[in-house]
Amino acid sequence: MNQAFYVPTKVVMGDGCIQKNRGLLAQMGKTALIVTGAHSAKKNGSLQDITDTLTLNGQSYKVFDKVMSNPTIACVYEGAAYAKEIGADFLMAAGGGSIMDAGKAIALLARQDIPEEKLFSGNYKKDVLPMAFVPTTAGTGSEVTPFSILTNDKAKTKTSIATPLLFPTLALLDGKYMQNLPHRTTANTAVDALSHCIEGVLSNKASTITDCLATEGIRLVASCFDDIKKDTLSLNQRTDLLIASMLGGMVIANTGTAAVHAMGYSLTYFKHIDHGLANGLLMGRFLALMEKDCSGRIGLILSNLKLPSVSAFTELLAELLEKPQGLTEEEVNQYARLAMRAKNMANCLVMPKEEDLRKILKESL
Amino acid sequence: MNQAFYVPTKVVMGDGCIQKNRGLLAQMGKTALIVTGAHSAKKNGSLQDITDTLTLNGQSYKVFDKVMSNPTIACVYEGAAYAKEIGADFLMAAGGGSIMDAGKAIALLARQDIPEEKLFSGNYKKDVLPMAFVPTTAGTGSEVTPFSILTNDKAKTKTSIATPLLFPTLALLDGKYMQNLPHRTTANTAVDALSHCIEGVLSNKASTITDCLATEGIRLVASCFDDIKKDTLSLNQRTDLLIASMLGGMVIANTGTAAVHAMGYSLTYFKHIDHGLANGLLMGRFLALMEKDCSGRIGLILSNLKLPSVSAFTELLAELLEKPQGLTEEEVNQYARLAMRAKNMANCLVMPKEEDLRKILKESL
Repeated sequence: MNQAFYVPTKVVMGDGCIQKNRGLLAQMGKTALIVTGAHSAKKNGSLQDITDTLTLNGQSYKVFDKVMSNPTIACVYEGAAYAKEIGADFLMAAGGGSIMDAGKAIALLARQDIPEEKLFSGNYKKDVLPMAFVPTTAGTGSEVTPFSILTNDKAKTKTSIATPLLFPTLALLDGKYMQNLPHRTTANTAVDALSHCIEGVLSNKASTITDCLATEGIRLVASCFDDIKKDTLSLNQRTDLLIASMLGGMVIANTGTAAVHAMGYSLTYFKHIDHGLANGLLMGRFLALMEKDCSGRIGLILSNLKLPSVSAFTELLAELLEKPQGLTEEEVNQYARLAMRAKNMANCLVMPKEEDLRKILKESL
Repeated sequence: MNQAFYVPTKVVMGDGCIQKNRGLLAQMGKTALIVTGAHSAKKNGSLQDITDTLTLNGQSYKVFDKVMSNPTIACVYEGAAYAKEIGADFLMAAGGGSIMDAGKAIALLARQDIPEEKLFSGNYKKDVLPMAFVPTTAGTGSEVTPFSILTNDKAKTKTSIATPLLFPTLALLDGKYMQNLPHRTTANTAVDALSHCIEGVLSNKASTITDCLATEGIRLVASCFDDIKKDTLSLNQRTDLLIASMLGGMVIANTGTAAVHAMGYSLTYFKHIDHGLANGLLMGRFLALMEKDCSGRIGLILSNLKLPSVSAFTELLAELLEKPQGLTEEEVNQYARLAMRAKNMANCLVMPKEEDLRKILKESL
């Protein structure tokens, strides 16, 4: 078993953790670019806590609040230009995966001129703005990964910039920013965190450490299933989901994601299906496929989910998620073909065939 | 629960991992100081693998092989002077905890002039030689911790330099270097790894992540108890112990050690009792003390040890370890007093009284 493991991000957590760790923020620079979406960081209080703390520290800042869901390449170049304009020497982001992923690309592009055609090349200078991230959904784990996943219109999918340079310096986790998340967002993001843990267990790069973290993440999400469904999560449960999301991030930082994500990107790109939802729709049937060749690994997942079978898991996901319209045969064929080409497929413990992916896509939606 | 977690060291593992990761070593510098003890790194093949790989990379090196068990302050100043003399721009270490701990202090002192009276101050410039470590015992986990523990004759104990600067850049783990370890060393170091995991569970800084890693470490060591006792460990089991040791290191990097280590330092300093053995002798009775106030945590430890009671654990340790001569009443009093002053005590989930420590010391030896 491969035992490589690397997550250089410092994680701090707890109520008021932005303010309590202001000393760590003070070390990061003089002028911050704060990356957010248009609304949520203002509503949930995270932006206020950040700006109050930076002000207290005597640090200046500007806010770039133009990041949309599934951020585009144009958006991150615009953010980087703004970072340069204001002379930002560090970057903060408050938001979900889209915000943090955009923040990472902005941090990279603010310090080096990379033409668009080389953005996903993997060849970068060792120069990036230091980053401190505040996740406000519990799904992506982007605060502890080296990935920035962007909408890539040329490749007609989502593509990741993947480099250890993109590990944030600091992750600041406070469950209170998630207390007013819409029900659908809560469910979809929790399933996203779960998918990271599950794909990590089914990765050919799984190790003792990633298995530890992944199974704990699975247990934490599973312990919240009932209250996710009923939208009755307590602050403690929100915090557990935030931990699960971070654990999932640490897992995929080392294992990568696999076929579920590879297929899910098409559902998001072409059908505008939320990322976590896309993964959740596909996960049950992917596990059923893997069960033949990886029964031990599937058993590990099910025992931590406290579920008797893959079909019970598929049913549970169906209860948690809103199923969108089905796909045409042409769409199924196209998405399976695109998925087979995705980088993520190299992480599969057992490599699915294109016809397997067609079957999963067809039956899942 | 506190959820801070930080281990920036990159861990790679497997058969031939020094050679296979020579690209990572190539990035570290031009001239290495290789820190070892007098004999073991030569016998177990690790030094040869390092020098072969550096030569293949076109990197130059010199060997400093003067580190003794429980390294002295004089030794690390001597090593640092040698590092400066040869113009080392990175440091490798191959050995057990003593070697790695000395290596860290040498890496620090090679880059900044710190007078002896300020060596343990915690105030250092951000400047240290990059380090790549090859552990050749499975106990200390020093390859993933920010601690350098040195023999401090002024304080009549072992004292740690503790700073995030001391996290090695790279840990290279290969179980084959441990195949010919003496039986006593194997047992004592395995118990040391176990003590890190157990003290981590009983720390007031324990978190979801450290609990995950600690309980896995406990399970791995427990799965080897029989073969440690019989000295019949396979290479796979050696590898499991090396993983357990690394997990224990990641745990104490975040939780610190506690009362067992605080007391153990006196047994090592005054009675020359091996560090792992010292911890092992004291651990059973420390758990018995903690059981009153922390029964849930003790239950977590016992369930992962697959043992029914603390007394069963104490008996098992007695079978694994060689018990030295008892202590005089004067020694018991002195060691308890010194332990109460140790920095480690601040990490105890429940603070023992000095009379508790006297009782543990008296009954354990």
